[in-house]
Amino acid sequence: MKSADNCVIIGGGAIGIETAYALRIHNKNVTIIEMEEQLLGGILDPDMASMVENYLESLGIDIIKGKRVDEVDGAECLKQVISGDIAISADMAIIAAGFKPDISLALHSGIEAVPAGIKTDEMLKTSADDIYAAGDCIINYSSIDGKPVLSRLATSAFKQGAAAAGNVMGADERYRGTAGTFVTRIGTFEVAGTGFNSVTAASRGFEPASGKITSKIKPEYYPDNSDVTVKVIFDKNSGIILGAQCAGERGAAERINLISMAIEFGITLDEFCRTEMAYAPPVSEVYDPLLRAADFGVRRMKRR
Amino acid sequence: MKSADNCVIIGGGAIGIETAYALRIHNKNVTIIEMEEQLLGGILDPDMASMVENYLESLGIDIIKGKRVDEVDGAECLKQVISGDIAISADMAIIAAGFKPDISLALHSGIEAVPAGIKTDEMLKTSADDIYAAGDCIINYSSIDGKPVLSRLATSAFKQGAAAAGNVMGADERYRGTAGTFVTRIGTFEVAGTGFNSVTAASRGFEPASGKITSKIKPEYYPDNSDVTVKVIFDKNSGIILGAQCAGERGAAERINLISMAIEFGITLDEFCRTEMAYAPPVSEVYDPLLRAADFGVRRMKRR
Repeated sequence: MKSADNCVIIGGGAIGIETAYALRIHNKNVTIIEMEEQLLGGILDPDMASMVENYLESLGIDIIKGKRVDEVDGAECLKQVISGDIAISADMAIIAAGFKPDISLALHSGIEAVPAGIKTDEMLKTSADDIYAAGDCIINYSSIDGKPVLSRLATSAFKQGAAAAGNVMGADERYRGTAGTFVTRIGTFEVAGTGFNSVTAASRGFEPASGKITSKIKPEYYPDNSDVTVKVIFDKNSGIILGAQCAGERGAAERINLISMAIEFGITLDEFCRTEMAYAPPVSEVYDPLLRAADFGVRRMKRR
Repeated sequence: MKSADNCVIIGGGAIGIETAYALRIHNKNVTIIEMEEQLLGGILDPDMASMVENYLESLGIDIIKGKRVDEVDGAECLKQVISGDIAISADMAIIAAGFKPDISLALHSGIEAVPAGIKTDEMLKTSADDIYAAGDCIINYSSIDGKPVLSRLATSAFKQGAAAAGNVMGADERYRGTAGTFVTRIGTFEVAGTGFNSVTAASRGFEPASGKITSKIKPEYYPDNSDVTVKVIFDKNSGIILGAQCAGERGAAERINLISMAIEFGITLDEFCRTEMAYAPPVSEVYDPLLRAADFGVRRMKRR
């Protein structure tokens, strides 16, 4: 890594962009190549992903979207990464294109599983009595609609582990599934999200709409201020909160955590709008951008 | 103010300590005199208030507790502030000892009111048809037990104003009362709270217990880290969350906002423990101090 000048990152998910940033601040030439038409595909909506892309490009990172890698080329050592008629000079390539769990132990033991993972019940018990499973190797469920969801986050693994361990010891703890709440920070840019993005929400049978705002995190007159962009996604008919995405210099994760909790406990958008957030000018606005985005959303709900 | 050297702040609430800090960073000699045995009395528990006191004292601010001011003394201009046998030299004094609303307009108009404020219903309507009231002039209610509570915060006033305005226009918006969620930041010290403190909780008929922890906000190995202290107060029997207090260099308000929402929506401590918070090492821990404090609390709940 120390002698590499030209680095190619294959895959523009969280690991890919974090790695790209880490190499770029060590003055490498960095290119991210991503097969989707946006970074953080399946997670962020395109408008929010473009904020991430703009930030990475402002650091001098090249981004190639909508292209699959055909070949990682070089006889003795790596020379280039090839995608169709594009050849990117590279003396280092990092594959950050996702993974599948190795569930062969479960399969060889006769424990029920599908390629996506081991099957468990809500108590994290597998098909075999007294055998529990937790983490990236199991099929995870959405806390929004209760159906399977691809979400392999430390957050889920940790909560599953805690619940499974408790149940092994005789507790009665249901794992409630995940909203896929995540955050990443690259340099001075924090991006966080939870729940479904707009495309996923629609594909799972909801009628998504959103409320979105970019606004200061502190009152206008206050020094050491910054912008945050918040997008809250909800079902037009029911007001169920389906997800949210947030980006800015700071303050993204803390707002997403509130939406994450609202999703988990079935708090609807109109209820959420009135939640009480701590206010003091050195810290926050009396009418927080998160609540403003939610209020904009409420106006787009179908009247019941 | 520019020519004053010795400043005395009468009252150690949020306004008092913020003002003390502002004067201290302009190199004034600053003394806070507070009649309670702690700063932020009625808001923080003594153990949490002592963190604030230690921080202010580390900046060189003098704090006198458990003393009432008897006299603000000086013939032509202020010379000293006197409390019993203590005389504090002063060429400036700031009274930050609370206030009562002026409700004479309501009283003269025959609108129902008591000394603490104007009476309204849940829709913010006064005893007079078509007249609504909001803000520090009305009697506020606790969102925890539904009984009157002294809480005069911009946060409440704003939410009441929004609800009252909506109702005037024909909406049907119930104001749900307040948990008294607040934050203040003095220099590099942020302190936030919500709900009842332990003494208030007991006086309102609950059997309070707490879970408390001081821990890093990011993983141990991560640079640019800091400590946060979290105390979650709950009813031992029911698991109802009664309040929380949080202090540290940063990250206090964001954690209190989660507890504030839990209180508002009646989420119990054992349910709260499993809420999903965004994790990435540059931002947060996978097992956040807030959830750790809540987990400690759960172990102290009476088994049902």
